[in-house]
Amino acid sequence: MAERIELDAWKAAAPDTEKAEVVGRLIKQFGLSTFTDSERKRFDHQLFRRGIVIAHRDFKLIEERIRQGKPFIQMTGIACSGPMHIGHKVDIDLFLFFKSLGARCYYCAADIDGYVARPDEKVPSLERAKEIAVDNVADALALGISEKDIYMQSRKEQRYYEFAFELAKKFTFSTLYAIYGDDYNPGKHSANMLQYSDILHQQLKEFNGPMPSLTGIGVDQDPHARAVRDIAAKLPHGFVPPSFIYFSFQPGLQLGNKMSSSEPSTTILFTDTPDQVRKKIKDAYSGGRDTLAEHRKLGGIPETDKAFQILRYHHPDDKFVSDTYAKFKSGEMASGELKEIVIDFTNDMLKKHQERRKRKAKAAEKIVLG
Amino acid sequence: MAERIELDAWKAAAPDTEKAEVVGRLIKQFGLSTFTDSERKRFDHQLFRRGIVIAHRDFKLIEERIRQGKPFIQMTGIACSGPMHIGHKVDIDLFLFFKSLGARCYYCAADIDGYVARPDEKVPSLERAKEIAVDNVADALALGISEKDIYMQSRKEQRYYEFAFELAKKFTFSTLYAIYGDDYNPGKHSANMLQYSDILHQQLKEFNGPMPSLTGIGVDQDPHARAVRDIAAKLPHGFVPPSFIYFSFQPGLQLGNKMSSSEPSTTILFTDTPDQVRKKIKDAYSGGRDTLAEHRKLGGIPETDKAFQILRYHHPDDKFVSDTYAKFKSGEMASGELKEIVIDFTNDMLKKHQERRKRKAKAAEKIVLG
Repeated sequence: MAERIELDAWKAAAPDTEKAEVVGRLIKQFGLSTFTDSERKRFDHQLFRRGIVIAHRDFKLIEERIRQGKPFIQMTGIACSGPMHIGHKVDIDLFLFFKSLGARCYYCAADIDGYVARPDEKVPSLERAKEIAVDNVADALALGISEKDIYMQSRKEQRYYEFAFELAKKFTFSTLYAIYGDDYNPGKHSANMLQYSDILHQQLKEFNGPMPSLTGIGVDQDPHARAVRDIAAKLPHGFVPPSFIYFSFQPGLQLGNKMSSSEPSTTILFTDTPDQVRKKIKDAYSGGRDTLAEHRKLGGIPETDKAFQILRYHHPDDKFVSDTYAKFKSGEMASGELKEIVIDFTNDMLKKHQERRKRKAKAAEKIVLG
Repeated sequence: MAERIELDAWKAAAPDTEKAEVVGRLIKQFGLSTFTDSERKRFDHQLFRRGIVIAHRDFKLIEERIRQGKPFIQMTGIACSGPMHIGHKVDIDLFLFFKSLGARCYYCAADIDGYVARPDEKVPSLERAKEIAVDNVADALALGISEKDIYMQSRKEQRYYEFAFELAKKFTFSTLYAIYGDDYNPGKHSANMLQYSDILHQQLKEFNGPMPSLTGIGVDQDPHARAVRDIAAKLPHGFVPPSFIYFSFQPGLQLGNKMSSSEPSTTILFTDTPDQVRKKIKDAYSGGRDTLAEHRKLGGIPETDKAFQILRYHHPDDKFVSDTYAKFKSGEMASGELKEIVIDFTNDMLKKHQERRKRKAKAAEKIVLG
């Protein structure tokens, strides 16, 4: 039996899902399904084409609804515990793609979760979580989420909260242990109640009624997916088991971790200035060789080059991305040259984002604070 | 050191708080305060005079507000998991007494709690909890609670639910262990979140703001009192530590347990017919002697006579209660005679209650279902 990969659904140190071998083991260990080549072709989005969407559970239910032209639920969101970074854009790009395919969309700004599940050192009060939420919602709007598709966790219908407690009755210790191991604490459990209500409540008769639902998550979040599917089956509401698609998290700019707002030096935040972006990318872990001569001779390693990953995750032009890949790999393009390209691309993306964000500030405040 | 009394805040098998020795040990073990004779005199209600109210935490805060003619919060309620019985009347009588002394009153019909904290065999769905709630609210109204003083746990403001999650961040395992020992499960934890929100939320700035608050509970519920006071102190809202008064639970009609709707044969339910009442009291554990001759000679033991306890907890006439006590204790009154008196008193009480209850049925339905 393969070595078991221990996951921690709450820490930034996710398994390195850039490595095909790690992905393969995770998929096997958790019993996830992979997409066939024909599915990748049918869902013609760059995140599918570039292998960033890596696996799923019960995606066939969603595929069928799309084929039949019937609606399905799509739910994702952000825990309001820090600023958003470009890694979050992947989640939202995927969300917008499925909206274009007919999803009824619900994006949750999880202010209560942001406060409850993080230590006081990080989010000391609900007020602070709401301030963070204003920024997060502005970013989400700037990334293309519609105002009517966003809801605040603290401003929902009574039934939503009642349901969060209702489902808590179906929690078991073994579920919690599977998610947290010894790292469980009661505050985290209460955050789960809300997260699972977020994913399931739209299937209640008071909302859409039972219907296939889709949520995109990082593969390290699978213990939550299993827990919420287990709970859905135990509740008396005739829920369709929620489907999940798994994407690999955008790697941070240094070795080891995914992008995380807790580690701003390895993460491109949406609020970064051009100079900050330049410095972070200049300092990023490189797939280039020690000397230029060696680089020309042996070629670079784009797979481990953190700057190149920004292009892979975000650049809209497949041909440009694959050409850059080839040039860097052959040694024709030096590391410094690649980094300049990525710096320019990132700063252009952020400049446009920051302009859109400014125009969305008032709308964001209204969504969060009423 | 005295033997430690293990309490289970969730089971009907409470320590026998009829026994002065048990009460004394509980008070010592938990660090509760007792009422002085002059306090008992000042709070001139039969539950104080008859020693049914046995201890408190921080009652001085409430006493001071009453002396100053200032308002204070009073909160109690019922978990909607079964029919109400005459033991619940004690709680409500005390509640009405403090209302007459200036309390702002909040009586919670805890439908979510009733579902979440009980096994599915007892309360299989939220719908069932709401049906039970309609009956419970009708009983509470019939016992004198005002319509405007009752709220449904499932029909509160968003802030109430948000706060239930906010306070969950301050739960620790040691708190939970102190309450439940090894009997903890995640569903119970979620019920606690609501109960503690019930007790504390009226002190939030969105409601009354910080203010002394009073809740009457059975002494076996003290672990909850300690937990909620601990959590109140950890939250950043400037809460006044909630005060508690402890009453001894009305004993069931057989040896051992307090009255509980889970054990209808030892409990007088508000819906009982005259024949049911007669049978239950006839079968009740008696403080009389084995033979009439022996009874005349040695006298009865009113302290252990379950029928007599009904008079002690509910009969409004002190003189009648103490005369009956004396006659039974001296042997002048036989057990059969005492039981006839108690049967008549109880049936008269229930007849009036059931008439009032009928008139409150519509109002109850409106409170529960809207």
